[in-house]
Amino acid sequence: MASDIVNLAQKLAKFSEHWSPRVVAEMNDYQFKLVKLQGDFVWHQHEDTDEVFIVMKGEMRIGFRDREVTIREGELFVVPRGVEHITRAQEECHALIIEPRGVVNTGDAGGTLTAASDVWV
Amino acid sequence: MASDIVNLAQKLAKFSEHWSPRVVAEMNDYQFKLVKLQGDFVWHQHEDTDEVFIVMKGEMRIGFRDREVTIREGELFVVPRGVEHITRAQEECHALIIEPRGVVNTGDAGGTLTAASDVWV
Repeated sequence: MASDIVNLAQKLAKFSEHWSPRVVAEMNDYQFKLVKLQGDFVWHQHEDTDEVFIVMKGEMRIGFRDREVTIREGELFVVPRGVEHITRAQEECHALIIEPRGVVNTGDAGGTLTAASDVWV
Repeated sequence: MASDIVNLAQKLAKFSEHWSPRVVAEMNDYQFKLVKLQGDFVWHQHEDTDEVFIVMKGEMRIGFRDREVTIREGELFVVPRGVEHITRAQEECHALIIEPRGVVNTGDAGGTLTAASDVWV
């Protein structure tokens, strides 16, 4: 029974890089990742999976081709599979991402913001 | 694109029953459920799946046959599949549960605390 208590604030204090998700827990073949966002990410989609964001601190925006939503602390949002989106944060925002193990942050877009997908903190 | 912003505090304000999880979002074949806990639940296990708790308010204890953990606000815990456990809260605690759609709260134990598994709020 190796499961440990994960204190999300303590884990967030352990890294400072933006757009670099850190895994904190696994449930079956899904991962819970903490991320710090600031600025604009890239337009991308995940063809095979939905993706959940829960904002822990600050606020983030998720742009879609037809609208934009603002997700604030204590709010959860599901980005449906196959839908192009871009994440943005004017000031630093902390979020918890839940998605299957192996999902790459930039989805189909690639590019310089692509992060390793299985880095734990 | 039917996905909506889920404000967890607002959803929690909409029900008061203990041990009665309410679905607030779905990701692939997984569900996010809010639950209010107070008192002792029942010993049970989920043979086929891990189960994640994130405490939103207060604190809960999870008892195992060989130890007990206390999970506080802002903390996450993974209960591994097939491990007998009991959830407890001395004072009312609010938590977010993440697990596959269709999981029954009492697992293999059944009994009077068994709740409908797909009630949304």
